[in-house]
Amino acid sequence: MSRYLKREYQALEAYTPGEQPRDAAYIKLNTNESPFPPAPAVTAALTRREAELLRLYPDPTGRALKEKLAGLYGVGAENIYLSNGSDDILNFAFMAYGRSGAVFPDITYGFYAVFAGLHGVPYEEKPLNGDFTINPEDYFNQNKLIVIANPNAPTGLSLSVGAVEEILRRNRDHVVMIDEAYVDFGGESCYPLIRRYENLLVVRTFSKSRCLAGGRLGYAIGPAELIGDLEKIKYATNPYDINRLTLLLGEATVEAEDYYREKCGEIIRVRAQTAARLKELGFEVVPSDANFLFVKSGRIGGEALYRALKKRRILVRHFEKERIRDYNRVTIGTAEQMEAFCRAVEEILEEIT
Amino acid sequence: MSRYLKREYQALEAYTPGEQPRDAAYIKLNTNESPFPPAPAVTAALTRREAELLRLYPDPTGRALKEKLAGLYGVGAENIYLSNGSDDILNFAFMAYGRSGAVFPDITYGFYAVFAGLHGVPYEEKPLNGDFTINPEDYFNQNKLIVIANPNAPTGLSLSVGAVEEILRRNRDHVVMIDEAYVDFGGESCYPLIRRYENLLVVRTFSKSRCLAGGRLGYAIGPAELIGDLEKIKYATNPYDINRLTLLLGEATVEAEDYYREKCGEIIRVRAQTAARLKELGFEVVPSDANFLFVKSGRIGGEALYRALKKRRILVRHFEKERIRDYNRVTIGTAEQMEAFCRAVEEILEEIT
Repeated sequence: MSRYLKREYQALEAYTPGEQPRDAAYIKLNTNESPFPPAPAVTAALTRREAELLRLYPDPTGRALKEKLAGLYGVGAENIYLSNGSDDILNFAFMAYGRSGAVFPDITYGFYAVFAGLHGVPYEEKPLNGDFTINPEDYFNQNKLIVIANPNAPTGLSLSVGAVEEILRRNRDHVVMIDEAYVDFGGESCYPLIRRYENLLVVRTFSKSRCLAGGRLGYAIGPAELIGDLEKIKYATNPYDINRLTLLLGEATVEAEDYYREKCGEIIRVRAQTAARLKELGFEVVPSDANFLFVKSGRIGGEALYRALKKRRILVRHFEKERIRDYNRVTIGTAEQMEAFCRAVEEILEEIT
Repeated sequence: MSRYLKREYQALEAYTPGEQPRDAAYIKLNTNESPFPPAPAVTAALTRREAELLRLYPDPTGRALKEKLAGLYGVGAENIYLSNGSDDILNFAFMAYGRSGAVFPDITYGFYAVFAGLHGVPYEEKPLNGDFTINPEDYFNQNKLIVIANPNAPTGLSLSVGAVEEILRRNRDHVVMIDEAYVDFGGESCYPLIRRYENLLVVRTFSKSRCLAGGRLGYAIGPAELIGDLEKIKYATNPYDINRLTLLLGEATVEAEDYYREKCGEIIRVRAQTAARLKELGFEVVPSDANFLFVKSGRIGGEALYRALKKRRILVRHFEKERIRDYNRVTIGTAEQMEAFCRAVEEILEEIT
């Protein structure tokens, strides 16, 4: 840090991303990536011709991809905003809508508090219930930007669309941002509500169910006016924010919807198997609608299990936060990877008894 | 725009990027892209295997690419910052270092004023001399963030390293950001000065001389403390800001340095030919160290020429700004493209006489 840095930023607590080992020898169950490659038609879209066209800037409007996504959801292209990963949308929303503060759960995506800190947005963390569920009433009439990950992370629990609608109805004068990064693994999307609620911004990503974390592609679905706000900020920061190839891969991804639905089904199946197995081993397993499980053993602490797994070349995510430090978040990998994970857990538990 | 948008952003004047026609029938001389594809080894790096690995997040530290760039310039990896295009670096610098205001030329990259507006940074535009050169003394002892494109755009004129050093020496308590987007076409880089000036931030891009505008890759070279500031802001906004494939292509690009030097040489050669031809046609041609020419005809207005060329399917860049509206900025394409451009200009001039 230099002596020139603006004082407000000097004490910034940045988000700590999950470990990204350069060594591929790990079974990587720590950052909620898909264990499956993008659809064959998507990887096939990366032709030599397209690589040569990298000399040209991307289309800053992303029109072709917006139209494809709009078609998929039955909304207009003016209801779609594209971004370099969904974190950029979350960041812009805190910039644009946080003037009177923000509210989000105490246990949720750790980056929300970081964005708030960056933009000087005062925020309140609403404690989750004892079972980690969200109490919708906590978010009624808040007069602040409301941010809810649905399904929530790292718990995997979802709110019903009805509950989200209640929150929207009781916060007409403020934006309610629903982060649906994990919705394709069992949650219910609230995007149809954008027709009736001018304050709803739904945030999505290609990083999880669309097997494209490395491509950096997020999008928002919302009323045209909110999308216009985000576009305004984009054109004042980085209009060419999305890679040319990524726009192309995004289009091919929308066209390969069947492939991704099948892979989501596979994740859901393996998640159920893994949950059952962990319960047999005495774990508490939070019911998950996401591509991860949030689990706690009565026999070994969260950090100890994380470390023991890491020694066996399996990475899961452990958080230091007081309330959840007995837990680990385990991304659902392939059936084979989860078999290896469960066997490793069994061995670890045997060793300590 | 919605009624929820923070008041300060409602009046934002965004940057207008050059036209990006989806129709490839244009000779595109309007956004300073390279007419050449990336080096063969770069496009060859886009293998099916790498496409499949897009399911994984990129390395947020970009370590491998940083080390390659550090090797190229003989600096440390801690002196390199990587970004999703260089606009992100400019944006962060206005955020981080603009607290007491900013100074830049009246005629320069139009985005500087936009970044200043976004972050509420008051700015002063120093008028260029009558011949569009920068007067270094205008930037002495300013007590503000100083931003200079070198070579400048859209003029193409450069400052010597000695002049930049004088500016650095006389602004020890503020950051001096030198935007070297176009330096590889005849300018002289001041990055060696980072060893002696803790206030120097040099900004570079792969979009121009590295034929990778569509890949979105920029970097900064600077003292480790300034690089640390930028990293701090990155980790509080979007740590995974660079596409996984782009990191890989960036590495292959650094290894293909000879190819790019040759292509820069070709651009410089064609630039000289085009300048000579335009002078024969009575144009005033600003001496350029960049991959474009800034030119004015005594016989046709800037906008009229822009429109007449567009009708002939040739795009150049025209700016509305009072002081330069008689000019056009013409990117240097291949020898064939510039031949077509010059012939079109001849025809247009003949038609109006």
